Amino acid sequence: MSRRRQIYEGKAKILYEGPEPGTLIQYFKDDATAFNAEKKGTINGKGVINNRISEHVFTRLANIGIPTHFIRRLNMREQLIRQVEIIPLEVVVRNVAAGSLCKRLGLEEGEPLPHSLIEYYYKDDALGDPLVAEEHIACFNWASQEEMQDMSAMAIRINDFIAGMFAAVDIRLVDFKLEFGRLWDGDYSRVILADEISPDGCRLWDMNSGEKLDKDRFRRDLGGEEEAYQEVARRLGVLQNDGNTPGEVFDLSAHRGRVRGSTPKKK
Amino acid sequence: MSRRRQIYEGKAKILYEGPEPGTLIQYFKDDATAFNAEKKGTINGKGVINNRISEHVFTRLANIGIPTHFIRRLNMREQLIRQVEIIPLEVVVRNVAAGSLCKRLGLEEGEPLPHSLIEYYYKDDALGDPLVAEEHIACFNWASQEEMQDMSAMAIRINDFIAGMFAAVDIRLVDFKLEFGRLWDGDYSRVILADEISPDGCRLWDMNSGEKLDKDRFRRDLGGEEEAYQEVARRLGVLQNDGNTPGEVFDLSAHRGRVRGSTPKKK
Repeated sequence: MSRRRQIYEGKAKILYEGPEPGTLIQYFKDDATAFNAEKKGTINGKGVINNRISEHVFTRLANIGIPTHFIRRLNMREQLIRQVEIIPLEVVVRNVAAGSLCKRLGLEEGEPLPHSLIEYYYKDDALGDPLVAEEHIACFNWASQEEMQDMSAMAIRINDFIAGMFAAVDIRLVDFKLEFGRLWDGDYSRVILADEISPDGCRLWDMNSGEKLDKDRFRRDLGGEEEAYQEVARRLGVLQNDGNTPGEVFDLSAHRGRVRGSTPKKK
Repeated sequence: MSRRRQIYEGKAKILYEGPEPGTLIQYFKDDATAFNAEKKGTINGKGVINNRISEHVFTRLANIGIPTHFIRRLNMREQLIRQVEIIPLEVVVRNVAAGSLCKRLGLEEGEPLPHSLIEYYYKDDALGDPLVAEEHIACFNWASQEEMQDMSAMAIRINDFIAGMFAAVDIRLVDFKLEFGRLWDGDYSRVILADEISPDGCRLWDMNSGEKLDKDRFRRDLGGEEEAYQEVARRLGVLQNDGNTPGEVFDLSAHRGRVRGSTPKKK
């Protein structure tokens, strides 16, 4: 594959120009960051696993009528996606108190919330992604009223659906983050689900042991990040018990940071 | 006056049992705090002035149909109010970027906002009164949907009305904080405006010079706090040019911390 134009490099992913107008290639890195990138590291094989988990979840969400940017997986670390204009909000859905919510409101980690809670954070690394309310979003026109309605309605459906998916494999969906984008068609745009859904942006606890199977293992120096991500993928059926994804045979350790059939630009 | 039972002591006010059931006496102190009481001090005569300004503003708000807890002023530092159950939210209305909003969203102080902005902060000193969204308020049932509608509708009307009042005396209303309370009548309650409206909880800038005429003088060690509070009172016509409130002759300096006709408990 010839050298591709890089569109954007984020903390965990790189976007390249896609093969057709309106498409991009989303490349999943092993890089892990926490606390607004104050903490940096690597989780070996994370990119491969997140690519598969996100494919799995987005495909199933499309089946229930949630429009997403996902088109198809290309290889171990890459997927073809629709190009969207990212709405500068992180939409967080919480079912159980954890993380910043506990600190902010003085709640005990693990306390079930009276209702599922949607929060909006303004995507701005320099400001530390501050919590905002719908009033700020309207005031600064980060999203329209209609877009807010679409995003919150989708977030509620996604929460119910993926809570069910994870519950089926004995995982408690504590909270998760979504990003949405505008898909333009001439002068009109509609909001579709973008980014990824993976243990990077979800809190996933084993239902029986309470063990954390997500990026909190990295954030809190608990160790076993690689195994936790693999465990989630295995339970969802996207990683065989031998550590390989179904239909493909590869050794995670041998391919760290490399992708067959493409040469991603190294940082 | 006999010794009264103290109901509550806050940072700037004390509440005493009132003469009849359902009433309280609100006593205005000269104590000033900032940054969640990390900074403490005194602004001489502040209590006397805030009692008068708040009386003035609340009386005029009642005239346009905003229900308030204010019944009547009793003396220099005290007013008779209706007893309410305070809703644990600070309702902040902003017209111009200043203070925490600038820090949170990276705005320049003095930047006019595209629209007036209502914010809600959860009243909890230990947590530093964190910003919350309507979703948190609903999730933890701090106020009902109906109460939120009543509060936001009142906040918008209050903003327009007092912005006009201040504009009439060449003062720019940058932002201000409101508190509301539930007035119970049997099993039913309605929301009324409580607390106070004064330079303690408003940002007020001289329209011509831009000079700050509010508690930011104290917060930011600008000096001249007493003069600034007096200037606001004088412009609103609640303090004569000789420093006395109309219809009453007193010397602010001679009465610091003392109220004629009552002996408030000293800290």
